[in-house]
Amino acid sequence: MQMFANDPQYIVEDMLKGYAKAHSDIVAPTDNPRVFKTAQPVREGKVGIVTGGGSGHKPAFIGYVGRNMVDAVAVGEIFSSPTAVAFYDAIRAADHGNGVACLYGNYAGDNMNVKMAMEMAEDDDIEVKIVVANDDVASAPKENREKRRGVAGEIFMWKCAGAKAAMGGTLDEVIAAAQKAIDNCHSVGVGLSPCSLPAAGKPNFQIEEGTAEFGIGHHGEPGVEVCRLGTAKEIAEKMTKLVMDDISDKGNGELAVLVSGLGSTPVMELYVLYQEVEKILESNGFKVVFPLVGNYFTSLDMKGATVTLCQVDDEMKEYLNMEIDTVAWKQFQK
Amino acid sequence: MQMFANDPQYIVEDMLKGYAKAHSDIVAPTDNPRVFKTAQPVREGKVGIVTGGGSGHKPAFIGYVGRNMVDAVAVGEIFSSPTAVAFYDAIRAADHGNGVACLYGNYAGDNMNVKMAMEMAEDDDIEVKIVVANDDVASAPKENREKRRGVAGEIFMWKCAGAKAAMGGTLDEVIAAAQKAIDNCHSVGVGLSPCSLPAAGKPNFQIEEGTAEFGIGHHGEPGVEVCRLGTAKEIAEKMTKLVMDDISDKGNGELAVLVSGLGSTPVMELYVLYQEVEKILESNGFKVVFPLVGNYFTSLDMKGATVTLCQVDDEMKEYLNMEIDTVAWKQFQK
Repeated sequence: MQMFANDPQYIVEDMLKGYAKAHSDIVAPTDNPRVFKTAQPVREGKVGIVTGGGSGHKPAFIGYVGRNMVDAVAVGEIFSSPTAVAFYDAIRAADHGNGVACLYGNYAGDNMNVKMAMEMAEDDDIEVKIVVANDDVASAPKENREKRRGVAGEIFMWKCAGAKAAMGGTLDEVIAAAQKAIDNCHSVGVGLSPCSLPAAGKPNFQIEEGTAEFGIGHHGEPGVEVCRLGTAKEIAEKMTKLVMDDISDKGNGELAVLVSGLGSTPVMELYVLYQEVEKILESNGFKVVFPLVGNYFTSLDMKGATVTLCQVDDEMKEYLNMEIDTVAWKQFQK
Repeated sequence: MQMFANDPQYIVEDMLKGYAKAHSDIVAPTDNPRVFKTAQPVREGKVGIVTGGGSGHKPAFIGYVGRNMVDAVAVGEIFSSPTAVAFYDAIRAADHGNGVACLYGNYAGDNMNVKMAMEMAEDDDIEVKIVVANDDVASAPKENREKRRGVAGEIFMWKCAGAKAAMGGTLDEVIAAAQKAIDNCHSVGVGLSPCSLPAAGKPNFQIEEGTAEFGIGHHGEPGVEVCRLGTAKEIAEKMTKLVMDDISDKGNGELAVLVSGLGSTPVMELYVLYQEVEKILESNGFKVVFPLVGNYFTSLDMKGATVTLCQVDDEMKEYLNMEIDTVAWKQFQK
């Protein structure tokens, strides 16, 4: 496998070393080598924001640690959950006396480990509440939303909760902001090539030339169908229809839209896809008020993209426009 | 070829449509569809900063347009120079009465078209001065630096010049800042996989498994040798040695270091590479004071990376730390 790596078994280790060195102004190490916290000062009494998940999704999860967003992160091995202790240590690192919101994606390992971490935190009298992201439309029908996986919509959940906490929100208010953000998110992924686990050194599945895995998950979980790849317009229509149809109440019609690459997609192609998505949304009466295009949540070296629609109102727009300084997402106050 | 595209002949067109829609707060269209300018207010009398180049290097070049950096950009077809008229229109768009610094990479087409654009601008009494980036160490020996290609070091050239212009520098001062920045840059690229021109639909050369094209150019120009890929440590040693040895005067030993992916390299691997590069630099008496890791200057879907060392003094650190708001690079004031 063609990659920059030493021993692939320690690739997360090596990556974190590089990350900590390159971004010491934004993230700081903790006593637990798999837990990092914001290097920027946090106001005493601010509700803490924690996330975590498996590695291989760069810039998620660690890239969202920073001023006005995530306070501490638990880092897992490639595609596997951080340990309960890592989540617990992240919770302790993020605690400033008024509770911690732990905001993560709906995967069995993360659910289990966060639950254990919460029990440990309870013994320390740290109040922890959770929101479990479940924005991947293709992973379960609408009536079973609680079974859906969390994917790229998680970044809106962290952004809104981080803003609310920075504004002085209580734990319940921060949790409400996070829950509202993720409830408003509808995502779908399409894979054009498989990804390769570094330690395995070969693709973990196949995608035939000229086809796409429609509805693929962030770890290569099979999609709902293998479709013809077609043009950007055709694939954008298929993706956008699925997520638009998932919206029950159009509300004001305003959307934040994220088109994220899955790791090896040239950013040029993401813009080609974005302009088709936006056209379709506008012709259906939606208005994109907050667009994001780039590699915001990836799957190792998979080629492909996710499209996330996030319905926004004035409250959410205020959260989204708040200044943040993280590695993955820097936002100047508008 | 597995990609998100409509007619590959019009992929630049489609990409720019998406780009303009997604980033209307940062870039604005002009009458020339291949010229974009900053959407943010520019102070009358500020020296203008122009760049331009072929497409396929996202986020370069357009990604560096924005507050305190590049004022206008000329966009070429995939891997080919913008037209003379596009450079000329970009110069006009960036002119605010005190001249324009046109800062671009050393390629035959760009040199020719910028020269013609300057002649056109002369007729309009717009003073234009240029700096031609030539930081690619592998492309010519040190004594023929003027023959070297411009690669990822260009971003430091734009950053320093943009800052100097924002501070009220004259055209000569801005040009001096740009020249100093690029003179201080030493870059090398390594390719692990070829790239594919969208219209051709297949790789434009081959790289054998287990080998790397050492010294590869931004358009797949052959390197100085095909070497064994080896570990991240080994390839980092080879890359870092080449660029360190290109430094004549170590000065204060302080460096800005950019490790940029070439398009399809997972960012995780860039951090693995970065930590090895930093270790080698520090053991050789250098100190990294301004690290950048990510996809800052790419080559379509090529897998690989560039390493750029940029020697910095207090003046350059002030430029680098100045606040900028572009799509590719957002920097909060330190």
